[in-house]
Amino acid sequence: MLHSRPNIIHTARMREADAPQSPVVRFAPDRPLITDAGVPLSPLSIAYQTYGRLNAAKSNAVLVCHALTGDQHVASQNPVTGKPGWWETMVGAGKPIDTDRYFVICSNVVGGCMGTTGPASINPATGRAYGLDLPVVTVRDMVRAQAMLIDHLGIDRLFCVTGGSMGGMQVLQWAASFPERVFAAMPIAAAAKHSSQNIAFHEVGRQAIMADPDWRDGRYLDEGVQPLKGLAVARMAAHITYMSDGALQAKFGRKLQDRAAPTFSFDADFQIESYLRHQGSSFVERFDANSYLYVTRSMDYFDLAADYGGSLAAAFKGTRTRFCVVSFTSDWLFPTSDSRAIVHALNAGGASVSFVEIETDKGHDAFLLDLPELFATTRGFLEAAARARGIAAEAA
Amino acid sequence: MLHSRPNIIHTARMREADAPQSPVVRFAPDRPLITDAGVPLSPLSIAYQTYGRLNAAKSNAVLVCHALTGDQHVASQNPVTGKPGWWETMVGAGKPIDTDRYFVICSNVVGGCMGTTGPASINPATGRAYGLDLPVVTVRDMVRAQAMLIDHLGIDRLFCVTGGSMGGMQVLQWAASFPERVFAAMPIAAAAKHSSQNIAFHEVGRQAIMADPDWRDGRYLDEGVQPLKGLAVARMAAHITYMSDGALQAKFGRKLQDRAAPTFSFDADFQIESYLRHQGSSFVERFDANSYLYVTRSMDYFDLAADYGGSLAAAFKGTRTRFCVVSFTSDWLFPTSDSRAIVHALNAGGASVSFVEIETDKGHDAFLLDLPELFATTRGFLEAAARARGIAAEAA
Repeated sequence: MLHSRPNIIHTARMREADAPQSPVVRFAPDRPLITDAGVPLSPLSIAYQTYGRLNAAKSNAVLVCHALTGDQHVASQNPVTGKPGWWETMVGAGKPIDTDRYFVICSNVVGGCMGTTGPASINPATGRAYGLDLPVVTVRDMVRAQAMLIDHLGIDRLFCVTGGSMGGMQVLQWAASFPERVFAAMPIAAAAKHSSQNIAFHEVGRQAIMADPDWRDGRYLDEGVQPLKGLAVARMAAHITYMSDGALQAKFGRKLQDRAAPTFSFDADFQIESYLRHQGSSFVERFDANSYLYVTRSMDYFDLAADYGGSLAAAFKGTRTRFCVVSFTSDWLFPTSDSRAIVHALNAGGASVSFVEIETDKGHDAFLLDLPELFATTRGFLEAAARARGIAAEAA
Repeated sequence: MLHSRPNIIHTARMREADAPQSPVVRFAPDRPLITDAGVPLSPLSIAYQTYGRLNAAKSNAVLVCHALTGDQHVASQNPVTGKPGWWETMVGAGKPIDTDRYFVICSNVVGGCMGTTGPASINPATGRAYGLDLPVVTVRDMVRAQAMLIDHLGIDRLFCVTGGSMGGMQVLQWAASFPERVFAAMPIAAAAKHSSQNIAFHEVGRQAIMADPDWRDGRYLDEGVQPLKGLAVARMAAHITYMSDGALQAKFGRKLQDRAAPTFSFDADFQIESYLRHQGSSFVERFDANSYLYVTRSMDYFDLAADYGGSLAAAFKGTRTRFCVVSFTSDWLFPTSDSRAIVHALNAGGASVSFVEIETDKGHDAFLLDLPELFATTRGFLEAAARARGIAAEAA
């Protein structure tokens, strides 16, 4: 069985949902987020982090969009886990996204649980957590909210928008919704629509959460419990999809965990079992179950072409944004064919696009790892874009 | 949420576990199954079905080994579901495994829930269901039990042993454990060992079951409940792995279920969600949760080479069995590389082996489907083997 801690409210995490250790923009009630569901969300809070310095021309801002269970803590310690930021390999002084040169912004997505309005936030109308009363949000809603933040920061045009996985979906949505505001775009390990298999895996995760009696139809926070076991199972299933078969075989294979022979039991005999259980039980300490429902749903609903008469090329028609599309050979969740479809659409739309498929056995999560070819690609793309944007000399 | 029926004991299913509508061999207490766990299992019951007629020479018996959640009802109506047998495409009069010619045997595996001793069977020592008191069983234990049945039926040598997935594992184990008793062997969509990724998916399913409070540490039958939600989630996760990404995309894609637009909710908007929920809720009506723990564990533990000093070739050294190894191009659970490893080992062991990789987009479950190339392969292999065995003329 999963040996998670007792079913208590994780106070550090819960505090972050409403009073985060991040700057927060709280938009006035008369500035709601009009969601795709047709429901205005107000008041809207957006929690974010920035790194580096915005130049005088406000031309050096890089917006990083986080993935499913990521957050705004890109390159600084996470206040819940105490761990380094999730993209410190990529973002920082002298790193590929160089904070000596660029002003990096990352905000927690709408529907998240790290300070931006989400299901664990207090609904001012009731004084209780929103739970499922929060409207279901889409990737486009996430981007709309980010645009409100960018307005608030006084930035007209982003130098670059980048991110992996669900972050990459946001990059594509930014480029489609606000082409004049995105100078360069780098979607990594992404897709222009969520596949049937991907929806299926998300649905398994949601059902695991909803099957937990401590989910209480989404009202668990009112009742002082949390569906930790269901959420852990959801994470375990998802985590398998983030790694390649080959990487699992290389890392764990059939190796036993601290024992010389199988125990003929349902203990975690194999290292892969122990590893997965750990992934599940550590995840529930940092993430909210209802948020998991919301962010998975936003990805399922993502189908960029659908908003443009079924033509992905139409989404990018006439765009002046410079694109660099990145995929990984062993990513079976968002395979290279998904990235290639984006590239074809960009080509058909007349866009400037480069495409890099990186050889790695690390699977989907490769974008989070120490991957020299990804770093070199990012440096090269940003360098050329910076020259074109005229910010190279200024920052030098 | 999964809308499964109320959490009641499914009486038809429960009856099958101890008083099945199948012939049953009940071995006397002095004839225990000595399991790999070192625990004697006694008394042992084996429920089975046969089709066709054993010839006078007893040379035309084909043993079919069922997959994870299969059963002995290969080619006749399933008493629990009321549906046709699970391999009626393959087994029957005039079918590739022709019951006009061959005597087909299939027994429910040890650890199953259709009449062979398993965790839902009554433990005579306590008068209650075994639950987790049943020793954890292996694929080799399943094969040992089948050998006891074959002895009971008075058959020295099987003409052919075949099966898909976990059934194919049993085929390999038969050929290794009892080479003189297997004239021909056809493992389909199988592997000589379970991969790390496969163990991972099984572990998710087990954790989903154990996370369900109605699992009651495996003693749910005593308490009149069943972990149906957990078992349904386990099945949903597993079911995704039985189909290819391409098949899911072709069959369901992003099509909506009985609605013109997304509902912005957590309902089953997409057909794939509705389909998966149905797979989960129908599965729990026919399968026992503890059995699911046992059969998944047996596959995890399967590593044929490990019993032969790490050499798969040694498992088959000097074998006179004729092999036909079959894989499917789109099977990502037991990919062709797994079958190729078997073929290499057989070649190294000097065996007679043919290898057929069948082009299909149907994924792992292709072995259960209407697949002309599989049928032609089976007919051809059995025809040649029958001539070599000298049963062709007799049956004509």
